[in-house]
Amino acid sequence: MMRPPLILAYLLRFLVLPAIAAGASSCSIKGFPLVKNISDLPQDNYGRGGLSHITVAGSVLHGLKEVEVWLQTFSPGSGTPIHRHSCEEVFIVLKGSGTLLLASSSHEKYPGKPQEHFIFPNSTFHIPVNDAHQVWNSNRHEDLQLLAIISRPPVKVFIYEDWFMPHIAAKLRFPYYWDEQCLQGPDKDEL
Amino acid sequence: MMRPPLILAYLLRFLVLPAIAAGASSCSIKGFPLVKNISDLPQDNYGRGGLSHITVAGSVLHGLKEVEVWLQTFSPGSGTPIHRHSCEEVFIVLKGSGTLLLASSSHEKYPGKPQEHFIFPNSTFHIPVNDAHQVWNSNRHEDLQLLAIISRPPVKVFIYEDWFMPHIAAKLRFPYYWDEQCLQGPDKDEL
Repeated sequence: MMRPPLILAYLLRFLVLPAIAAGASSCSIKGFPLVKNISDLPQDNYGRGGLSHITVAGSVLHGLKEVEVWLQTFSPGSGTPIHRHSCEEVFIVLKGSGTLLLASSSHEKYPGKPQEHFIFPNSTFHIPVNDAHQVWNSNRHEDLQLLAIISRPPVKVFIYEDWFMPHIAAKLRFPYYWDEQCLQGPDKDEL
Repeated sequence: MMRPPLILAYLLRFLVLPAIAAGASSCSIKGFPLVKNISDLPQDNYGRGGLSHITVAGSVLHGLKEVEVWLQTFSPGSGTPIHRHSCEEVFIVLKGSGTLLLASSSHEKYPGKPQEHFIFPNSTFHIPVNDAHQVWNSNRHEDLQLLAIISRPPVKVFIYEDWFMPHIAAKLRFPYYWDEQCLQGPDKDEL
């Protein structure tokens, strides 16, 4: 009969090895066909409650240099942090509804009180470069699903704790959540 | 009683003036809210049978410089010309199915026989920079609807008459169909 530690090690082989393998393959699209089913792409919440994120096409996974496309689902009450970035960003709402908070004040010292915009299925909006913003699912009953399209990936994000935090105090998060595991080395040339 | 030419002129006031007004407003998003209903955006076939094109967000209409997003619907049998461009392009198929023809031969003298790929709902693919390609609705029974995302708008397109036309003979179309009416002056710096 195996001793308990051996049994544990035996079981871990089956638990840990596939996780490592999945980790490795999630940094590469080798083996994926040219035309991919979005449902087959890696999906994760990257430690953020209420989020489901899929990089549909982008820098780290697919080698794109100029555009990146995300499919994101936010459960009721969840959303993005308050943040800004110097790339362009376009949103398309596929399902559900929610709120865009946008502070068009990149020339002031801090974002300040944001404007609130209702977002709804089949709506689109884009975020002016460097404007602090937050998207969240303010609908209690339904998931909010959207496509987000950014330029110049991988994204470099400055995060605010609140709307009155000075722009210069916003904290850089790079690589961002979904790029963290796979991005090879820092590339801060274009921050 | 009015003479026929006067009646015609009278009628034309109602037919032509709204068209001019629509032409003017279709080159501007003034009056549109920040969050737009995609169904309210200008939609046209731009003289191409079977096409419905909406620029969801982009250069000419919205002032974006780095990304542009199109919502396109192709009726059965219709599709894009055979073409190439130096920008990146990502597709997401929303409805219907069809065929991607792709010739990965930008270093040869002409595209040559393309590879055929089946495209289907919830599928995604991206076109390598400068590869000649064509997307068409090869499904006889259903419209093909997709999102196309390009970098560095407005798009500059080189069109081929067939897959064996030399790359250097492909004909530049700039401004492209949907930018033609509104693009102010040629800007060929980055062709």
